[in-house]
Order: sequence, then structure tokens, then C-alpha cells
Amino acid sequence: MLTQVRIVGAGLIGTSIALALTARGVSVELIDSNERAAALANDLAHGKKLDAPEIVVLAVPTEVIPLVIEPEFLLNPNSTFMDVGSIKTEPIVHIKNSSLPLSRFVPTHPMAGREVGGAHSARADLFTTRSWIITPTSECSAESEEIVRELIALVGASAVVLPAEEHDRAVAAISHLPQITSTLLAHSLESVPAEWLDLAGAGLRDTTRIAASDPKLWSEIIYSNRDQIVELVQGMHHELGELLENLESKTSIASFIEKGRFERSRIPGKHGGKAREYTYLPIVIDDKPGQLAAIFNECAAIAVNVEDLNIEHSPGQQSALITLALSSHDADSLSNHLSAIGWNVHPILK
Amino acid sequence: MLTQVRIVGAGLIGTSIALALTARGVSVELIDSNERAAALANDLAHGKKLDAPEIVVLAVPTEVIPLVIEPEFLLNPNSTFMDVGSIKTEPIVHIKNSSLPLSRFVPTHPMAGREVGGAHSARADLFTTRSWIITPTSECSAESEEIVRELIALVGASAVVLPAEEHDRAVAAISHLPQITSTLLAHSLESVPAEWLDLAGAGLRDTTRIAASDPKLWSEIIYSNRDQIVELVQGMHHELGELLENLESKTSIASFIEKGRFERSRIPGKHGGKAREYTYLPIVIDDKPGQLAAIFNECAAIAVNVEDLNIEHSPGQQSALITLALSSHDADSLSNHLSAIGWNVHPILK
Repeated sequence: MLTQVRIVGAGLIGTSIALALTARGVSVELIDSNERAAALANDLAHGKKLDAPEIVVLAVPTEVIPLVIEPEFLLNPNSTFMDVGSIKTEPIVHIKNSSLPLSRFVPTHPMAGREVGGAHSARADLFTTRSWIITPTSECSAESEEIVRELIALVGASAVVLPAEEHDRAVAAISHLPQITSTLLAHSLESVPAEWLDLAGAGLRDTTRIAASDPKLWSEIIYSNRDQIVELVQGMHHELGELLENLESKTSIASFIEKGRFERSRIPGKHGGKAREYTYLPIVIDDKPGQLAAIFNECAAIAVNVEDLNIEHSPGQQSALITLALSSHDADSLSNHLSAIGWNVHPILK
Repeated sequence: MLTQVRIVGAGLIGTSIALALTARGVSVELIDSNERAAALANDLAHGKKLDAPEIVVLAVPTEVIPLVIEPEFLLNPNSTFMDVGSIKTEPIVHIKNSSLPLSRFVPTHPMAGREVGGAHSARADLFTTRSWIITPTSECSAESEEIVRELIALVGASAVVLPAEEHDRAVAAISHLPQITSTLLAHSLESVPAEWLDLAGAGLRDTTRIAASDPKLWSEIIYSNRDQIVELVQGMHHELGELLENLESKTSIASFIEKGRFERSRIPGKHGGKAREYTYLPIVIDDKPGQLAAIFNECAAIAVNVEDLNIEHSPGQQSALITLALSSHDADSLSNHLSAIGWNVHPILK
């Protein structure tokens, strides 16, 4: 049973872990070279001085691990250690070069984050429903792995085991290359006047959303994992060169789009589970308080569960288009029910 | 006053225009070389034989315009004509080569669509709140432009005037290059195993969403506008080459990310209006019918207007995280109110 966790690093991840653990009755202590950050984090998470933490979480940038590992090991000679960095081969090298036995170190990477950092941005629910990758080395003790799995389960995440090298190749493909691509597309807007940007649809916005991420964090990540990333960027550079040569062939362009469409279809839906098939019910409502409540009351009255909701406002108009994501059965029931009592329900979208 | 509109092409756009106009009391007739599509569309939109349409909408692919324009002009010698294609210089050339006087042709492009096509996917609300670009030539009569503006207003969209060449350069940048980039990133997934894709976060999903678009439609669009697109793709190819050379420099990578972040910040929020600054209120609820209704009832009770809503389900858990987008003032009120009556409200996110 996990009772005490010491967290080195009072940033977004460290403080969020602390908040989540405190909520589950585990005692936490946060430390940070930035004393104001540590004070804020301990206030938020009700941190207190601990005498024998079972786990020390190294929630610091990977390159800082060599600076903190020796003093932490001296202070906590019997604890299990884990890190939370985005690259997993590098921290293992740091631990190998330290006094801490590899048997007591578990490299981990929570698949969660926000586009804002710092203790003040921390959330107890940051890890809820997320995957949390662990990449134990062959030296790792079963006991250390078990206690880290307990921490992961307590904060609401699901542990997934991968070898460290495979992790680094995987995140290069599913996280770092998307970041680079989104940033690259955002660069192309440099010469685009504001009046044109006003016309942009959801495509441009979605495709560039993660371009808003933190430069300091991401330059560390991309630099550290460049050995895995370089080949992917080379591949993309090559494909773009081929497209340039083929822009005079409609057939080649069609194959280019078709192949992307196929590969895109392989990505599962949110939460890392299989994509759920929702049915969408569009309803036009008056854009004023009370309308959504009225609709949700009708949903509750006939036991319909709303899976997701999108609201489109009409600037300068008094109406809004809301689209409810529902099971197919619920969509039929709700559509009939709302239509019968006079709501402006539009045909169901599959 | 617009009373009769003839629509050539019973696909997604043509049928959606028909549905929207019918709802506003305008008579419509749809024709299509595919007789089943035409029959379905006329059934859906209550189409009927018209004797004197004020407008003929050419809702066909741009390359089909030369095939339909002569018979349509013979049948409707007094009508105004408009097209709805994604490229605007090309249809003008087609009309110049036809008997139809340029004074009665208005090239247009609604900034709306769906990832699915066909009459059965049509929606009366497809154009609600969207921009609809018109690119009148200098020959275009004031009367024709006026009647086209009336149609655009009737279907709920806002007319935006641009010269045709500028339109084609704008959409190359804000629509066609994002499509190419998203497809390119999706290509890179070819060698990514399914287990890695299971770990993907929202970043990969958002960045590749439009890669799911229709290959036939998009190969036409990209091919037709290749003169405007080629330079943008060359620029991207060049930037990617530079990044490859700079992957050994953390400072260069940071500048790369930083520049993307800046350009991204220039894109306005949804609906083409200025980005609205929302405040986000996270609430953890039981994942069962009635919970959302209860929250919206509280919102209505204290006159709080919900601008948008996101729902995150926890697979295998009984809770869901909902995040309400609100004005800053409403977020404060609602947070205090819900907390006071026992809801599990989390700290406000700015």
C-alpha cells in the first residue's frame, strides 16, 4: 500500500501527480530548486515533510536528473525511483552513471500534458483515462515495478509496458513528428495576411493546434530524440519532394490523398481505446441560457446518455447549432421525442 | 425577392443549398446526370419543375461546367448563374469560352463542407454561420451580384468579396496546404504498428483529421490550383530541409517551434470571427443520464451561458470530466455556485 511519495520538481506533471495522490489519501512532499514553485505546489497539494517515501518521482527535465539523483539517493536509500520524461533511453543512461541501483529505477512516461506549464496549471485529473507508459529495464525489480504500477493506477491512468528503445521510436512517430509537422504548417502562415486567416476553416485550426506548444519543452524533447526523429523527417522531406514532382498528375495527387486517408483510418478514437461509433443529432436552438438545460432535461427524462456535444454559434444571429453525439438507438429516440414536442431537430448524421 | 432557384448538381453542396432555400420558402429544382441522385435530392428538398428561375446554381465540379453551361443558358436565357467550386479563376475562363455573358455570372465559393458527400449527406444548416466568398469579375452586373448575395443570406452565410486570383492564393494557403500537410503526416504512419497508434494522443488525431477527406474531390482541387500551391509546397520542402540540417542544434529547434507558435497565434477562433477568450471550468460528474441536465439547470438558474462543452469519459470508470467554456465572469459565478451545492468543481483554467 502506497503511503508516502516524494516528488522532485513542482511543475505541471509533478504537481498534478501530487494533487491526484493527495485526493487518494497518499501523503506527498514536493521539492524544487525554485522555492516559490515548491511552496505553491505544497500548498495546493497539502504537501508535508515525509520520513520514508516508498517512491521518489523525478518530475524534472531529463537533463536535470544527473544533478538531483545523488542527493536524492543519499536521502532516500530505500525508495523506488521513477522519472516521467518524454524520452526513455536517456534517463536509463543517467541512472547507470549514478549510485542508484538500476533495480530500483522505473523509467515512465505519462501520455498526458497541457499546452501550459507550472504548478498553477496542475490538475488532479490530468492523468484520468490516459495511458502511462513504463519501460522497465531487465534489472528492474518486480517490487519496484509493482509499486510504480500502484501509483499509476491511483492517479487514474493505465500502465502500458514497452521497451525503452521502442518507446522512443513510438513517440517519435506518434507525437514528435506530428509536433514538427504542425509547426511546419504554421510557419507557412508567415506570408498570409490576416484577412485570409479570417476565412480559415476548422482544417487549418485543427492541423496547427499543437503548433502552440511550449518551445523550451519541445526543443528539449526533439533534440533528445533526434536520432529517432531524423529518419522520419527525412522520409517526409522525400515524400514532399515526390509530391512536388507529381503536381502535374491528377492521378498521382489522388493516390497521395488516398494513401493518407487509409493510414489515417488506422488511428483509434480518443482515450486510446477503439474508436466508438457515435451518431450525431443536430438541433438548432436559441442562443440564450436555459435552452441547453431544457434539452438535457428531455434527455434525462427518456434516459438518453449524451456522449459528446458541439456548439456552433452564429455571430450576429440569435441561434446556435448544437450537435449531440449519441448511440444510434438514443439518437433515434431523442430525435423522435424532441421533434414531437416542437424542437428544431435536423436529420441524424451517421 | 428570390422565388425560384434551379440547381445543377445534386451532390452535398447543391442539395444542401436546396434544403436551406426550401426552408426559407424559395422554390427549387435539382437536376443531375445521375437521375437517382436528382430524384433523392428533389424528394428531400421538395423540388419541383420551375418555369423562370432567377438563379441557376452550377453545383458541379468545375471541370464539368463547360458540359452544362450551353444547354443551361439556352433553357434559362434570363437567369443569373453562379458556381460553387473551390477554385475561382478556372470557372471564369470556362464562362468566357461560352455563350453566357460574363455580366450574368457570379463565381462563388462557400467555406463549408463535410468529409462525406452526396445528396443523402446534405444539411439545411451546412452554411449557417459560414463565410461564402464571391469573386465577381469587373463585367459582373450589380443586379446579378445582388441576387446572389440574397441567396447567400437566405441560406445563413455571410458574403465576403475577393478578387478571383486572390481567392485562389488564399485557399491555397489556408485550405489546400493544410490538406497536403495533414495527408503527408498520415503517410508517415505507414510503418507505425497498431500498438503504437493505440498510444496516440489528441495531437496526432487533430493533425491528421482532414487526411480523411475525399481523394477524388481533393485531387481535383489540388490539381486545379497547382499553380498557387506549388510555391507553398516548395517553401515547406525547403524549411523541412533546413530543419534536417539543424537537428543537432537545440537553439535552432527552439526557434523553429517558437516561430510556429507565433504564426499559429495569428489564426482567429472559430466562425471566422475574432478569437473569443473563454475561461474553462472542469467538473467531474457521474457518467450517467441526468448529470448534465442538472448542471445545465444550475447554469440556467443563475443565467450563465455555456459557450462550449467537452466531455471526457473514463473507460471502465463511473465518472466523466466535463469542461465548460464560459465567459470569465460566468466561470467565477458558476464555480462558486456549483461548489456551494456540492458539485466536484475543479479550479478554473484560463
